[in-house]
Amino acid sequence: MLLLATGGTIDKVYGLRGELEIGPPAAAALLAAAGIEISIESILSKDSLTLTDVDRATIVNHVRSRQATKLLITHGTDTMTDTAAALLESGVVADRTVVLTGAMRPASMIGSDAAFNLGAAIIAARTLPAGVYIVMHGTVFAANAVAKSHSAGRFVPVSH
Amino acid sequence: MLLLATGGTIDKVYGLRGELEIGPPAAAALLAAAGIEISIESILSKDSLTLTDVDRATIVNHVRSRQATKLLITHGTDTMTDTAAALLESGVVADRTVVLTGAMRPASMIGSDAAFNLGAAIIAARTLPAGVYIVMHGTVFAANAVAKSHSAGRFVPVSH
Amino acid sequence: MLLLATGGTIDKVYGLRGELEIGPPAAAALLAAAGIEISIESILSKDSLTLTDVDRATIVNHVRSRQATKLLITHGTDTMTDTAAALLESGVVADRTVVLTGAMRPASMIGSDAAFNLGAAIIAARTLPAGVYIVMHGTVFAANAVAKSHSAGRFVPVSH
Amino acid sequence: MLLLATGGTIDKVYGLRGELEIGPPAAAALLAAAGIEISIESILSKDSLTLTDVDRATIVNHVRSRQATKLLITHGTDTMTDTAAALLESGVVADRTVVLTGAMRPASMIGSDAAFNLGAAIIAARTLPAGVYIVMHGTVFAANAVAKSHSAGRFVPVSH
Repeated sequence: MLLLATGGTIDKVYGLRGELEIGPPAAAALLAAAGIEISIESILSKDSLTLTDVDRATIVNHVRSRQATKLLITHGTDTMTDTAAALLESGVVADRTVVLTGAMRPASMIGSDAAFNLGAAIIAARTLPAGVYIVMHGTVFAANAVAKSHSAGRFVPVSH
Repeated sequence: MLLLATGGTIDKVYGLRGELEIGPPAAAALLAAAGIEISIESILSKDSLTLTDVDRATIVNHVRSRQATKLLITHGTDTMTDTAAALLESGVVADRTVVLTGAMRPASMIGSDAAFNLGAAIIAARTLPAGVYIVMHGTVFAANAVAKSHSAGRFVPVSH
Repeated sequence: MLLLATGGTIDKVYGLRGELEIGPPAAAALLAAAGIEISIESILSKDSLTLTDVDRATIVNHVRSRQATKLLITHGTDTMTDTAAALLESGVVADRTVVLTGAMRPASMIGSDAAFNLGAAIIAARTLPAGVYIVMHGTVFAANAVAKSHSAGRFVPVSH
Repeated sequence: MLLLATGGTIDKVYGLRGELEIGPPAAAALLAAAGIEISIESILSKDSLTLTDVDRATIVNHVRSRQATKLLITHGTDTMTDTAAALLESGVVADRTVVLTGAMRPASMIGSDAAFNLGAAIIAARTLPAGVYIVMHGTVFAANAVAKSHSAGRFVPVSH
């Protein structure tokens, strides 16, 4: 298994200028606390609202070029579904299980959902067949059947 | 889905007399932080070293009497495998998915693995077929193929 | 003793839109954790960069109108010295001990200095003679002999 | 200023065997979070219920042998008043300000009073005249006018 970190709320830390900024992957400390060793690579360090098509292509290429068949991607919540769609369309998940997760509240804040979501994502990656999934709120969403509701502040299922 | 709390390290809090004691189910706050609503019932409130055969029968009976087919049990780590074995032998998991989890470090302590483990357990309950499982360290263990290594301070697979 | 909360970093919480915003006074939970009962009044709820002369007059008037002779003010760090200067010039501290404090890191974040600073400020208010003081980093600064160094991210003494 | 650590609740951490044990001085991380550099020496590492007259003599001798005239001592709460009495009787506080503090709840636990108390103690050491003091709950107690109420779980003033 491999974890690719791209930034997002989960990795936000408090900067010297008094604003939140993307720090190093929060997953490292969360995995250590749970007694797990998984390789972590930081491939992007951005708020997901600022991710471009080029960034999404970068993520797809990283997934394609790795030998791991179980991959976790930590990602900002605002465009997590866009990256999931890009992965689905790319065909790279035909023989890989890719799980995207993140947090509604930075791991650096008391009461964050980051550790919970990361634990959930790892089991999803271990138990689900090839494909791309979003795991948030203890729920597995198929990549093309989920949206972030900004009014509710959570991910919700959508039907097509 | 239903969560049955039995006590254990995950629920330990600091008492007025300066010792750790079992508090109310820590899962309540952890689920709320992750934006999840799951019914929680506190059926026992014990350190798992003190659980008796009667206690394990109580746990089995609670699982048997509930309509839920996906159950989480938060449990102390020292005899988690004994309770898993009792559930397996009882036959109640023939048509239910029961996942036991807990924590190596109380949820009340900074750096606890409780939220991570609970997130992992929920996805295991949602994705795995009928049976009884232990989920710790981001890993799904079959009930009869795992032991707690006291020297390593973690669960390890065992073969028979 | 009375605590007047005006907002600032100490009170920042993570909002649904993914940005830090001023929440209710963090001092309430910090005082409760320390086993202390002090009346808290929220008189402003602003980032201190946005405080105007009118706001500072509001703070001065609140201090003047209260019977308490020991007052704590939680305040944003960026203009804490300006409010201290306004209090000094107003004459209200001739017979009152007023201590301003805050945090470099929100109380809602792991590793915050908020509890430390608040504990420090309370003892300063209890032990120091009439006047206005800034207490940060475990140090008592006279109101007119301190500046916030933005490059160092801390308060430093200044001489005139 | 110098901080002497002796153990106690403030320094308790969760051990592998599932029990609280005295860890390294918690003050190090708390001071760093507050942006303060103070020398810390660990001179004892004990639950204060187990401190003997020999241990108290050790503490007194450490205070006597140091050049610092402002000293903090982190200490278990159960016999903090005994150590304060020993310091008072020894005469070493004739020309030194010694402040004892600790925590009702370990620094390793969420919602600990450790940072608050340490911030309070530092300002007490900086502002109070020579003597020995206990600082808990945001209050300065003279060494011979305080007791720990086990039923209330807090320090209370006593008169003689």
